[in-house]
Amino acid sequence: MTRLFGLTLAACTVAVAAFAGSHANPALKGAVDARNAQMSMIGYHTGLLGGMAKGDVPYDAATATAAAENLAAAAAMNRAVLWIEGTEQGAVEGSRAKPEIWSDAAGFEEKAMMLEAATAAMVTAAGTDLDALRAAMGDVGASCGACHKAYRGPRN
Amino acid sequence: MTRLFGLTLAACTVAVAAFAGSHANPALKGAVDARNAQMSMIGYHTGLLGGMAKGDVPYDAATATAAAENLAAAAAMNRAVLWIEGTEQGAVEGSRAKPEIWSDAAGFEEKAMMLEAATAAMVTAAGTDLDALRAAMGDVGASCGACHKAYRGPRN
Repeated sequence: MTRLFGLTLAACTVAVAAFAGSHANPALKGAVDARNAQMSMIGYHTGLLGGMAKGDVPYDAATATAAAENLAAAAAMNRAVLWIEGTEQGAVEGSRAKPEIWSDAAGFEEKAMMLEAATAAMVTAAGTDLDALRAAMGDVGASCGACHKAYRGPRN
Repeated sequence: MTRLFGLTLAACTVAVAAFAGSHANPALKGAVDARNAQMSMIGYHTGLLGGMAKGDVPYDAATATAAAENLAAAAAMNRAVLWIEGTEQGAVEGSRAKPEIWSDAAGFEEKAMMLEAATAAMVTAAGTDLDALRAAMGDVGASCGACHKAYRGPRN
């Protein structure tokens, strides 16, 4: 009974420490929230393009270009102030960043550059025609998936 | 009593219609969420620069430049796919957009261009020195405030 209480107390202490840690440093929480906002921007604009690619929404070159421009801008955000150390999943509430983002920084950078290239190519493709947009979606989706598979943890 | 019931029923119908409206069109809700994400990105990076301007965080040219680049990129997002009609406060959950954004489109565009210019100037200023960063913060803050005063509704 004493041992069980000790373990429970230890677990609670860990939980409280984790909670305090995630709230004590607003800079870390701010970076995680900003990354999540960046992902929302990427998701929204990819969704607009995907809707046209699938035929759910009529293709419109101007709208597709606008969406692709915003997607590319969100993908090309400077990572130095967003992916700061100490913001991995478990350390900061809302984060799903695997620690490999920092321990394998070169690999993460490679995946990020894949997304930058794919979304930059989408800007031209989206304004060309629906076939070009559809073809460009493959690389966008593949770069999202590759990075998430390697560097995103499970749902919180 | 009948009249009161009638009014209450009418009020409920309006409330239900508003609720259904805000959920029935995921495209409108998506645009509002994306705008809120954009505002989060703007707020985060302005906060980083503001922290340096106030002396809460030591000035660092590389970090300031990275923050300013992301701020400028977020401010320059193509508005055509974000500020779509039918997404004003009251019509879509989470929106604080005043209807004047659409009824006074030229005025809104002017304010948006003020922010684009101020944040573009910040990219150069942030990498120069702390005095330049501080001087550039004035225009950034003024453009945020001017747009919010004219085109943002009260807290939901």
